[in-house]
Amino acid sequence: MLDLRLYLVTDRELCGGRPLEKVVEEAVKGGCTMVQLREKDLCTRDFIAQARAIQQVLNGTGVPLLINDRVDVALAIGADGVHLGQSDMSPVDARRLLGPDAIIGLSIEQVEQIYAANQMPIDYVAVSPVFPTRTKLDTCTPLGLIGSRAVVERSVKPVIGIGGINRQTALQAMQCGLKGIAVVSDIMSADCPKQVAQELKTIISQYANI
Amino acid sequence: MLDLRLYLVTDRELCGGRPLEKVVEEAVKGGCTMVQLREKDLCTRDFIAQARAIQQVLNGTGVPLLINDRVDVALAIGADGVHLGQSDMSPVDARRLLGPDAIIGLSIEQVEQIYAANQMPIDYVAVSPVFPTRTKLDTCTPLGLIGSRAVVERSVKPVIGIGGINRQTALQAMQCGLKGIAVVSDIMSADCPKQVAQELKTIISQYANI
Repeated sequence: MLDLRLYLVTDRELCGGRPLEKVVEEAVKGGCTMVQLREKDLCTRDFIAQARAIQQVLNGTGVPLLINDRVDVALAIGADGVHLGQSDMSPVDARRLLGPDAIIGLSIEQVEQIYAANQMPIDYVAVSPVFPTRTKLDTCTPLGLIGSRAVVERSVKPVIGIGGINRQTALQAMQCGLKGIAVVSDIMSADCPKQVAQELKTIISQYANI
Repeated sequence: MLDLRLYLVTDRELCGGRPLEKVVEEAVKGGCTMVQLREKDLCTRDFIAQARAIQQVLNGTGVPLLINDRVDVALAIGADGVHLGQSDMSPVDARRLLGPDAIIGLSIEQVEQIYAANQMPIDYVAVSPVFPTRTKLDTCTPLGLIGSRAVVERSVKPVIGIGGINRQTALQAMQCGLKGIAVVSDIMSADCPKQVAQELKTIISQYANI
């Protein structure tokens, strides 16, 4: 059973010089339940090296490692799965290459995309973005709380939210019926990622929808 | 037996608005023996779509299609192989994911890299760049004719040259003992790619080293 409650998405630039794997390690100690490695500027060789370093940190924790976009990187290191956007490999191709046990997630940027997503071989859906965000610059118009709830109501898969979710907004986001929230900057840029993760986990744990 | 004689590397921007697959089709009619699809700016989904279009054009010609860097794209479409640079996935990982029948090529940018390349599960080596080039901006100092010959003499695998090779320089390049030449701009930007490929093939065919 996938535990999507507190889903960490990485951003190396927000680590302020700390090694990414160190920040991830602390965040997982604070209660993150999933980790997605997102790298948009690294060459393939460095991406794979970074993925292996994160994998080592997660080893034994039970927290799955997903790779953003790159099925080749996931296959090279034997990651638990991938997270795909609407411009990435189709979930059908990814499932074929990764096999039945891989975790595959899909971002949807408009409510209408949930109908196609419902037909796809994926494990969860991410509403992206819920709120405006500065972490990811290629995002669409935020779906907001109403759009997020509309996705939850129409989805046959568990739904998480991403984009602009932090300790201030987590409560509202969870009220849409999400199974979890994806957090980037609030954890990655924190002086103490563990403590922020713990605080987020406390907020999330109030919800009966998980 | 790999026919590396006239190895086309694509560049969509040089096609002047023509569909890439159309230029490739003409070039192959002119005698190109290999095609490498190189895309550095496309999202994964568009890269896969472009690869499928090229694959369709090559279907039945016997000309293999290699994908630059991206093993995921190669796997998704069932391409014949990949061409890897020093910053791409390691040939060992790529071979493991692609299997024994895939064609795997590796660029080397310094003569000394041939010793490591000789130990790797690859099918050919590309000296990159032989001459200065404006097509690829992240290249190292050209190996030149002397460096290219030094690689050929030390390589246990067939060696091709890439970078600044066109109808004017092909003769000199082949004289280094190469098994073939990779061409980008001279073919991709030609009004008649087929004719340019034919002219290059005529130059190459004078060499007994192939």
